[in-house]
Amino acid sequence: MSIITLTTDFGLKDGNVGAMKGVIWKIAPQTQIADISHLIAPQNITEAALVIYRAARFFPEGTIHVVVVDPGVGTERRPIAGKIGDQFVVGPDNGVFTRMIEAGQQNGQPMHFVHLNRAEFWLKQVSYVFHGRDIFAPVAAYLALGKSLNSLGTPVTDIVRLNLPKSIPTADGLKGEVIHIDHFGNISTSILRQDIGDKHILHVQVKDYLIPDFVNTFGEKPPGSLVCLFGSNDNLLICEVNGNAAQRLNIHLGDIVQVRLENIKKV
Amino acid sequence: MSIITLTTDFGLKDGNVGAMKGVIWKIAPQTQIADISHLIAPQNITEAALVIYRAARFFPEGTIHVVVVDPGVGTERRPIAGKIGDQFVVGPDNGVFTRMIEAGQQNGQPMHFVHLNRAEFWLKQVSYVFHGRDIFAPVAAYLALGKSLNSLGTPVTDIVRLNLPKSIPTADGLKGEVIHIDHFGNISTSILRQDIGDKHILHVQVKDYLIPDFVNTFGEKPPGSLVCLFGSNDNLLICEVNGNAAQRLNIHLGDIVQVRLENIKKV
Amino acid sequence: MSIITLTTDFGLKDGNVGAMKGVIWKIAPQTQIADISHLIAPQNITEAALVIYRAARFFPEGTIHVVVVDPGVGTERRPIAGKIGDQFVVGPDNGVFTRMIEAGQQNGQPMHFVHLNRAEFWLKQVSYVFHGRDIFAPVAAYLALGKSLNSLGTPVTDIVRLNLPKSIPTADGLKGEVIHIDHFGNISTSILRQDIGDKHILHVQVKDYLIPDFVNTFGEKPPGSLVCLFGSNDNLLICEVNGNAAQRLNIHLGDIVQVRLENIKKV
Repeated sequence: MSIITLTTDFGLKDGNVGAMKGVIWKIAPQTQIADISHLIAPQNITEAALVIYRAARFFPEGTIHVVVVDPGVGTERRPIAGKIGDQFVVGPDNGVFTRMIEAGQQNGQPMHFVHLNRAEFWLKQVSYVFHGRDIFAPVAAYLALGKSLNSLGTPVTDIVRLNLPKSIPTADGLKGEVIHIDHFGNISTSILRQDIGDKHILHVQVKDYLIPDFVNTFGEKPPGSLVCLFGSNDNLLICEVNGNAAQRLNIHLGDIVQVRLENIKKV
Repeated sequence: MSIITLTTDFGLKDGNVGAMKGVIWKIAPQTQIADISHLIAPQNITEAALVIYRAARFFPEGTIHVVVVDPGVGTERRPIAGKIGDQFVVGPDNGVFTRMIEAGQQNGQPMHFVHLNRAEFWLKQVSYVFHGRDIFAPVAAYLALGKSLNSLGTPVTDIVRLNLPKSIPTADGLKGEVIHIDHFGNISTSILRQDIGDKHILHVQVKDYLIPDFVNTFGEKPPGSLVCLFGSNDNLLICEVNGNAAQRLNIHLGDIVQVRLENIKKV
Repeated sequence: MSIITLTTDFGLKDGNVGAMKGVIWKIAPQTQIADISHLIAPQNITEAALVIYRAARFFPEGTIHVVVVDPGVGTERRPIAGKIGDQFVVGPDNGVFTRMIEAGQQNGQPMHFVHLNRAEFWLKQVSYVFHGRDIFAPVAAYLALGKSLNSLGTPVTDIVRLNLPKSIPTADGLKGEVIHIDHFGNISTSILRQDIGDKHILHVQVKDYLIPDFVNTFGEKPPGSLVCLFGSNDNLLICEVNGNAAQRLNIHLGDIVQVRLENIKKV
């Protein structure tokens, strides 16, 4: 039984994701389908790249991840499919798979992409505005049936990649930025556990706020405390215990975060 | 393996849809279940009729579509099930299947309905207020197991139908109304591609706004542009590229839309 | 085919529930997964206890219910699994299963719990902050594969239980409180159908409002009417027909509800 996951900015009220599931099951009835998120902010390719990376790495070998955050639908941007390590991906060639590709390269995984240009694997009528239903869902279903990537399109290597925020060394530590704010208002930054390594965090600053405590988990401090910790994807987080840090500090995507580390000499 | 889809106005937080899935799997464990939407506006039968029509037509033969937008639950309104073309439907007799029936008639599909009046196919205890769980879910599960419609109730032909908005010819074009506003704020109208045919659109007007451009897809114009295009269900849409047209123009369901066409003589 | 249900306060946008599904299917690919709710109010253990109780009782024997509302994640609070009647549960030992346990005891069902302390059934790397993915999802998957509870941990009997609101007899009736407000704004109280029994309700009061009518179902009164009725889980509800009673009356969780009954003498 194959697995297909769906990640879109379609929202949950209009039934468009349902139409994609119908298309998939019409071609590949034995497929299991998991929704990853349909609340990616509209047209936010960067958020989609992060969300699918974080979920995809926990899925079994051969899972097919369809990502449809696609402001260029119906224009010259290419529809693509690919394999990154042991996971398949299907979606627009606009950078949505950048984080998965970066992680694959770091882990030395093989990868291969095709330009989806064989219309016999699409719905017969392809709309200009809903390739999720008309191209990506049927292609994913054919992958679930065991079709090879190369049977679905022409190999390509020049796929689009986003320039995603990283952490940057500073005179006394690291600088990064806010890359995600989750449902709880926890603030995720581009600074990773491995960027800090064994060094000791003196303090973390976002906007004018110095976050007082570094902890392993929320319950170490009383509700209402502002804390830093490493999240479950190894990003440095800024959180309010049982509260909403982003709202309280009025933080937004792209805000600068600075970490001062102990064993780096000040200039 | 049978497929059941669920469309309700129950929202996502209370677990009521989960209870329906439990009921279904207790009777028909092999069933695949797809959520179409649980964010139909409360008691909005017209919206439900549109959403289920748009999704259902992509599902495999024999799929069972349960729709529970049911302000008359527990009153004299009948619970019904039916077959429209090759798709089954289960829900209250209040018009929620009107769009599917209209499309079936246009396509000359056979259809058949029954009044669900055989309580041996319901939960043993039927509440007054949750027929989705107590009647419609178990009936759908028995359909998934292969029970015939006529074994579940008595044939009826006088089922309730809504008078849904269409497009109306005017002196210089067509008049319609806003029938749906999607998650992105795209405005869907009752004017269909086939209503316009080969004629050239001179302009589209909603409230006092003249929409300047007709395009095939969003990416043809820069972000922020107001455009008209045909949506993936062939309705005429009014959209803002990468933006929310309904919010920007303060448009609501039922607002009048006018299309001026070139090759119709002005009176 | 085993069934696992998921109930969390994770929200729907970040993909964390998706990661849990990946973990489950990697271990137990044949599992059906149902989302019960991911919109439990953040850290609201009491709401989770109610929502999972209401849904779980409709699922087939052997279903595994994972509940992750877990403000104490990564602290000394124990991860547990158990069996209540014929349903399995997996989650933090913080009271989330209290309603299921109370109902099981009322029905004389056997129950058994274990402290999950055998790390060979967890992900290899366990984060401090996401035990839903790293402990509870894999444990649920091993239960789905048929592992016994006792193979996953050490039996315990002292699990945490909440002191949930009940109804209390008063001089002329019953006193309870608001325990849930649903998606429609219907107000659910801690007063149960069996608490009232055969007695006649003279009136129901919440805050300063006397609710005029007691009905069986919404459609008995015109839209906009305030009514009382028994909900599909036998709680006394206060509702506005086709409207939002909680918003209209500005009602919140914990507000006091009084019922005056006829055949109890006034003091």
